[in-house]
Amino acid sequence: MSRFSQLWAEIAPIGRADSGGYLRFALTEPELTLRDWFRGQAAQRDMTVTEDGNGNLFAWRGEPWAPGTVLTGSHFDSVPHGGGYDGPLGIVSAFLAVDAVPKDRKIGVAAFVEEEGGRFGVPCLGSRLLTGVMDPSRAAALTDRDGISFEEALGARPVGRIEQIANIAAVVELHIEQGIALRTPVGVGSAIWPHGRWRMDFAGVGDHAGTTRMTDRHDPMLTFAFTVLAANKEARLSGAHATVGRVQVEPNATNAIPSLVRGWLDARAADTATLDQLVESVVKKATERAGRDGTALSVTPESVTAEVAFDTALAARLSALLDDAPILPTGAGHDAGVLSAHVPTAMLFVRNPTGVSHSPAEHASDADCEAGIEALARVLEDLS
Amino acid sequence: MSRFSQLWAEIAPIGRADSGGYLRFALTEPELTLRDWFRGQAAQRDMTVTEDGNGNLFAWRGEPWAPGTVLTGSHFDSVPHGGGYDGPLGIVSAFLAVDAVPKDRKIGVAAFVEEEGGRFGVPCLGSRLLTGVMDPSRAAALTDRDGISFEEALGARPVGRIEQIANIAAVVELHIEQGIALRTPVGVGSAIWPHGRWRMDFAGVGDHAGTTRMTDRHDPMLTFAFTVLAANKEARLSGAHATVGRVQVEPNATNAIPSLVRGWLDARAADTATLDQLVESVVKKATERAGRDGTALSVTPESVTAEVAFDTALAARLSALLDDAPILPTGAGHDAGVLSAHVPTAMLFVRNPTGVSHSPAEHASDADCEAGIEALARVLEDLS
Repeated sequence: MSRFSQLWAEIAPIGRADSGGYLRFALTEPELTLRDWFRGQAAQRDMTVTEDGNGNLFAWRGEPWAPGTVLTGSHFDSVPHGGGYDGPLGIVSAFLAVDAVPKDRKIGVAAFVEEEGGRFGVPCLGSRLLTGVMDPSRAAALTDRDGISFEEALGARPVGRIEQIANIAAVVELHIEQGIALRTPVGVGSAIWPHGRWRMDFAGVGDHAGTTRMTDRHDPMLTFAFTVLAANKEARLSGAHATVGRVQVEPNATNAIPSLVRGWLDARAADTATLDQLVESVVKKATERAGRDGTALSVTPESVTAEVAFDTALAARLSALLDDAPILPTGAGHDAGVLSAHVPTAMLFVRNPTGVSHSPAEHASDADCEAGIEALARVLEDLS
Repeated sequence: MSRFSQLWAEIAPIGRADSGGYLRFALTEPELTLRDWFRGQAAQRDMTVTEDGNGNLFAWRGEPWAPGTVLTGSHFDSVPHGGGYDGPLGIVSAFLAVDAVPKDRKIGVAAFVEEEGGRFGVPCLGSRLLTGVMDPSRAAALTDRDGISFEEALGARPVGRIEQIANIAAVVELHIEQGIALRTPVGVGSAIWPHGRWRMDFAGVGDHAGTTRMTDRHDPMLTFAFTVLAANKEARLSGAHATVGRVQVEPNATNAIPSLVRGWLDARAADTATLDQLVESVVKKATERAGRDGTALSVTPESVTAEVAFDTALAARLSALLDDAPILPTGAGHDAGVLSAHVPTAMLFVRNPTGVSHSPAEHASDADCEAGIEALARVLEDLS
């Protein structure tokens, strides 16, 4: 059994649901168990563990935040019933890569909190706080579906920007690739598509499903349904991505016309102009339809991330170091994307044979994961 | 303060949510509190309280189930955030009508369990069990959204058909009208439209919302959205009613293409042929669309109720007795509809000025409610 398959087997059962997918929401019991496991791995390597007051956890070879440190790592949290690789692969790989790098090198391993936004609604919450792009009091007040605030879950008010981020020489996040573009075991990231999530509240008039005449209805489910189809069509026409994957209905009863349907639009495109046009066009069509349905639409951007181009010179250096590994963009958001505005940042992707992600079917082969660890070790040694 | 407004004020706070609507699900704490209130009202009137082993509660003037008894009453349970009149008005009115009827008359007041199907998914569960049209072992195994079975909630296996139903001379259920057709304080029911609920499971392939190309998706939200619009269009074309008011999504994450969208179709029409054609047409269109989306649809009828025509002679007698009160049909299901196949059954409707129901905005005026009580008293005296 390889060191990778051994470590992987240790964490595999943590937070796994009957679906085969994971329920590892930030600061809930399975994610806290993974943090304990992280502390154990750090201790085995004589690495110092620190927390940053924002929910992010670090293990350091050398002094914490020492100038010239190279930071690697990823996140433990999952989307509901997501795969096991998205996030944890970057942390497991980081510890195993550290083992292969000379002991005098200054390396930090990070576990960022709430990367998926699956609990508090804002993805990359930990890296946004750490870099100061997210206001700590706004973060403190975010609530999960049970009304628990981020501050309560964290046990303290988040502290916001950590000034020592300026000491970090480079950030390298290893992540499973989430599409099928990568045909070799390891690739290097070039850019992250601009992307965001918009909450759409469709308000109508709740009423009895049996007795209300069709012509008297103000049914927000109709406006919602129209918008789902419009978003799909607009995305296809503009070569972008649009998804409505989350819905809440009030009162959500079989025999009641809803009073409110809330849907979240996830939209992404290769450039900001295309993304802006896509969202504008979807909102315009939805608003027109709301007029015809006698419903009302309000749209709230919950998080919008501009296009991220990783450090071009750094990506080229990594590709050359890794036997001309391919350089490719991704549609998925990452903590590395947030950090790249503050520190020279790169990403390594590990091949995903089916491209499936955010699903129990997400998978990478052990051989490719081991190739990823070896690549990460070479990169850390080269940069540190 | 009238006796009606006094009793109404007693129960008004029980199970009321911040929305102003009610969360009075069968056999949950607010509904159990209402049952205690029912026992108190019965005791004040020296009425004997019995339960039937199916979750239905009765108060009797005279021996329980005595031959020739006239049964009235309704239900306490609500749809989520429903109005306060739908159900409880029939029980409060029943007790107050009993006060106005000579003491030698044999009258039963019923509180039927789970009329809305809001907890266990099958409407009129109590009256279906009592009349033997629902298999007790199937009812026992029904579960609520938390996985609690009807048997667990009831604390025992339901017993099924109660043979003494044959002793009941007539059933009269008073209910708030749920449309705007009734323009006088009180009306008499003629028929209930055939209606039913169909669960539609749209299965697709869960995947990452950011990285999965639009052409590679099998997104069940699209098939669902198309079906919502198709059901609305088909219902309008055929003069019927169709509603999708309840939805469940898996995993229900903003950044994940769903693996499953489950929607419930509530459909009703003036006659069975129209209803059958409506549902068939919606399922056909949805299945065709599923083929184009690369998703799969399975449809499960959860409850389908044939057309109910109330006893014509009885309705005419009540109308004459009530100064030629109008006789009108309804699109809403009722326990009286289930009972009418077994006992001569009538319904009295109390005017609803806006027609809004299954919503916090549901309302009837105190004056109309008092007219309803007076009408019910006259009917009970006439029939008993």
